[in-house]
Amino acid sequence: MTHIELGNDLPGIRGLLAYRPETAAPLMGLAEVLLRGDSSLSRGERELIAAWVSRGNDCAYCAAAHGATAAALLPGGAEQVEQTLRGAACDAPVSAKMRALLEIAALVRADGRLVTEAAVAAARAQGATDREIHDTVLIAAAFCMFNRYVDGLATPLPGNPVQYAMSAAHLIEHGYQIPR
Amino acid sequence: MTHIELGNDLPGIRGLLAYRPETAAPLMGLAEVLLRGDSSLSRGERELIAAWVSRGNDCAYCAAAHGATAAALLPGGAEQVEQTLRGAACDAPVSAKMRALLEIAALVRADGRLVTEAAVAAARAQGATDREIHDTVLIAAAFCMFNRYVDGLATPLPGNPVQYAMSAAHLIEHGYQIPR
Repeated sequence: MTHIELGNDLPGIRGLLAYRPETAAPLMGLAEVLLRGDSSLSRGERELIAAWVSRGNDCAYCAAAHGATAAALLPGGAEQVEQTLRGAACDAPVSAKMRALLEIAALVRADGRLVTEAAVAAARAQGATDREIHDTVLIAAAFCMFNRYVDGLATPLPGNPVQYAMSAAHLIEHGYQIPR
Repeated sequence: MTHIELGNDLPGIRGLLAYRPETAAPLMGLAEVLLRGDSSLSRGERELIAAWVSRGNDCAYCAAAHGATAAALLPGGAEQVEQTLRGAACDAPVSAKMRALLEIAALVRADGRLVTEAAVAAARAQGATDREIHDTVLIAAAFCMFNRYVDGLATPLPGNPVQYAMSAAHLIEHGYQIPR
């Protein structure tokens, strides 16, 4: 049961966004810029980083929600996402650049100070730009926030897992918004 | 040395905000609402939660920056802040309600799933409202992001620690802004 009375039954972060629209606006603004704004990383790749960090933090809602979105956007679909989330960064069925960025995201997730020059150089050697490295670090950091927000208030999961795919379809069409 | 070329010499998060204004806008919007917006927690109390989480994450820049801001706002000044950051939540020289909220923030910092019904009930027993519990969880979660962003890109500390107090004074007057 959610730790506080939200006045709604929406699952995961959606209930929190509806409860406190003043903080929801910059939170959704950040997600929109980072995951859907102008970038040389595809939307699917960025959703995969979000799902990867959320799985690392064992945040069931965020891992499923962003995993479903990545699956809808990436050419390899749900199988590519599940194989990525189950294994190590170096084994992920993605480009060599993405594997290096997932490794950086995993370090950020554990502790920002763990990101080494070597990890950054490895990403750069696979063609990652400074902007891509920056955005990977910030996506990973942001999901350390979103995961803690969702789990720290003990929000509920959706009653039916099919809702993840439905929400992903809505998100892909309309973007990150405050639920009405 | 910073992991990527920012094109500026600003310390801590300031260099990152100047580098990527598109993400800086929602990040500063979030800090402004959470730490300075309408709340029954004082600005000093909210800065203290930010400093407390940052110290827990060993983020030197954020702990010093928000510690200096809390010191400028709280009646007990720097001594009250340092005593809080050095000890356990239950020993902090703050109200019983704030001690219970610091305990929740420490749990969120480690892992959102660690926040128990008992920790929430303890805060409520000291008069904490649902909104205060919500905002404490989100402040703690947000600083798990800010700390990882600052340290994950290996940003520099200010050359002279007096800059923390100067920045705190500027922040208290003008709010959270993107550096020019």
